[in-house]
Amino acid sequence: MHRIEVTLGARSCPVCIGQGLLAASELLAAQVGDRKLLVVTDQTVARLWLPRLALGLAGRPHAVHALPEGEEQKTLGSVAGIIDALVAARIHRDDLVLALGGGVVGDVAGFAAASYQRGIGFLQLPTTLLAQVDSSVGGKTGVNHPGGKNLIGAFHQPRAVITDTDTLSTLPDRALRAGFAEVVKAALIADAEFFAWLEEHAPAVLAREAAPLAEAIRRACEIKAGIVARDEREEGPRALLNLGHSFGHALEAAAGYGRLLHGEAVAIGLVLAADFAARSGRLAAADAARVRALLALSGLPVDPPRVGSRKLLELMGMDKKVRGGRLRLVLPDAIGTASVTADYPQDALRALLEERVGA
Amino acid sequence: MHRIEVTLGARSCPVCIGQGLLAASELLAAQVGDRKLLVVTDQTVARLWLPRLALGLAGRPHAVHALPEGEEQKTLGSVAGIIDALVAARIHRDDLVLALGGGVVGDVAGFAAASYQRGIGFLQLPTTLLAQVDSSVGGKTGVNHPGGKNLIGAFHQPRAVITDTDTLSTLPDRALRAGFAEVVKAALIADAEFFAWLEEHAPAVLAREAAPLAEAIRRACEIKAGIVARDEREEGPRALLNLGHSFGHALEAAAGYGRLLHGEAVAIGLVLAADFAARSGRLAAADAARVRALLALSGLPVDPPRVGSRKLLELMGMDKKVRGGRLRLVLPDAIGTASVTADYPQDALRALLEERVGA
Repeated sequence: MHRIEVTLGARSCPVCIGQGLLAASELLAAQVGDRKLLVVTDQTVARLWLPRLALGLAGRPHAVHALPEGEEQKTLGSVAGIIDALVAARIHRDDLVLALGGGVVGDVAGFAAASYQRGIGFLQLPTTLLAQVDSSVGGKTGVNHPGGKNLIGAFHQPRAVITDTDTLSTLPDRALRAGFAEVVKAALIADAEFFAWLEEHAPAVLAREAAPLAEAIRRACEIKAGIVARDEREEGPRALLNLGHSFGHALEAAAGYGRLLHGEAVAIGLVLAADFAARSGRLAAADAARVRALLALSGLPVDPPRVGSRKLLELMGMDKKVRGGRLRLVLPDAIGTASVTADYPQDALRALLEERVGA
Repeated sequence: MHRIEVTLGARSCPVCIGQGLLAASELLAAQVGDRKLLVVTDQTVARLWLPRLALGLAGRPHAVHALPEGEEQKTLGSVAGIIDALVAARIHRDDLVLALGGGVVGDVAGFAAASYQRGIGFLQLPTTLLAQVDSSVGGKTGVNHPGGKNLIGAFHQPRAVITDTDTLSTLPDRALRAGFAEVVKAALIADAEFFAWLEEHAPAVLAREAAPLAEAIRRACEIKAGIVARDEREEGPRALLNLGHSFGHALEAAAGYGRLLHGEAVAIGLVLAADFAARSGRLAAADAARVRALLALSGLPVDPPRVGSRKLLELMGMDKKVRGGRLRLVLPDAIGTASVTADYPQDALRALLEERVGA
């Protein structure tokens, strides 16, 4: 088992990564104690992995609330449903929510935990690659609004993240690849050596070979944990983790939620960010080509749907990274380095987007 | 103008109390800068006091979202409506929500600000006595759920509280008295001298004489600010501020939200807490009599509606002050001192409630 720490004083959070951890009753007992529990999950994950978690809970009573599957569940309505379940289970301030599932479950259940009685504890038990390498770590929770992704939410650190890599055995290939986009993103902003390692090992990771898969998860989590520890509330460097996401979020919204997986939108967003950085002279063209090549090698989409640049820019204007009315972008400066900037040629951005997504 | 500070490091919050402050354009300018603004208010307050705030904003553009009046607006649905208004007004992370109104407006608008883009700034501009002496100070925000009051919410400190005491000139007598219950509570938990001052000056305060009214608000805010500074997230002494509220919240729910004003329920709750403390030998009977007498003198209800003790106890079981399955109560030990305890005779509590509210 790997153990990484997100160091945040009283809100510090261990991230445990390994095989069979959902059934690791001692590890779970240390977190759960004699608290009352509500497991929030989705119907697919409940069928596949709830029995193993029940094993790990070793007879402890736990209420279960299963959402239907899918990004369209990421609404305030789902949060209200979880609150109803928390009330019905008579969960109190010192009790726990267990979020068993992918990013949607973790984000929605985490926001419910953040809001119920003004904040109760929760554990992240991520079952998708995207959740394991990205969304379960760092305490961002929230739901979507027609005006934008994750527009409603809270920073609320989980008590712990317990990642059972066995759960990836039942993840569809498309979802595995989508999660891999966030691994590429982590390498691109912070670790050139890891990026080169991914160029070599992407096929093995995506073939779910245990050792390379665990290594990719571990490195991505370490990068994220290090950045979050420096800037929990995204007032500075944490914004780097949004590389590809300004474009990606807008593409998801423009295409209609659910058409592109989040990780697929991020993959396209990474290519747009790299290509724009190359055109505006920040990034070597060869490095932009490496970004596109690695994502394409991983079976991810690299070209955006033709949603229209006007719509896309308008959606980007609603993005959380706008400060003082100016749209700030995260752009790579090299493989392994990126920066947040509002200093870029706006016309060139418009031109690139018109070329890629139409007028 | 009085100025009190809620000392919380980076989240410190000034509380400014005085006449005419909604029109004090320099004071407002210092908080608002060139940020985009959404004013959240209710329809009654909008008619009465929005023009004065517009004066204070000195021509700054501001969007307005007015809720219908009343406790029944304190729902997740109202929060969703405010979020829609924030999106429509293209409010971003660095912009501001201005909560102009009573406790309902402040709680709902504050929770919307806490949740929008995972937290944006807001100002409390309280216009009722209850909001001025209690709910606007300390960062508790939230909405109700059929399972309990304030069951969904966040701790989110306002940037500042700006209390224009002129707004009390349009407050109905009943609402003024209800707010006064929280003033009595503050004195009862923390300041025997202030309690004695209230026994003398309650009639003048409730007749809205400017000097005693301002003094009552100032002292109540100072007490609350001091307690919140020691324990922002209610892990310890802040729970003292809930004196009378375990009973009060349950009475509000049992009677049906809206039948009892919050402050009226608190007044009855203070009497129940004092009487129970006296019966269980914690509080002198003469002190319990002083609590009842001051509240009665202030025109507040001191006897509960006959909602039934079984229902009341069940509703109290859902209260946020339950830890590890035991119901903790805040009980006065003397005029000016209270403590949080789970060590009291449960049978005597049941007997008192049966006597006062029926079986």
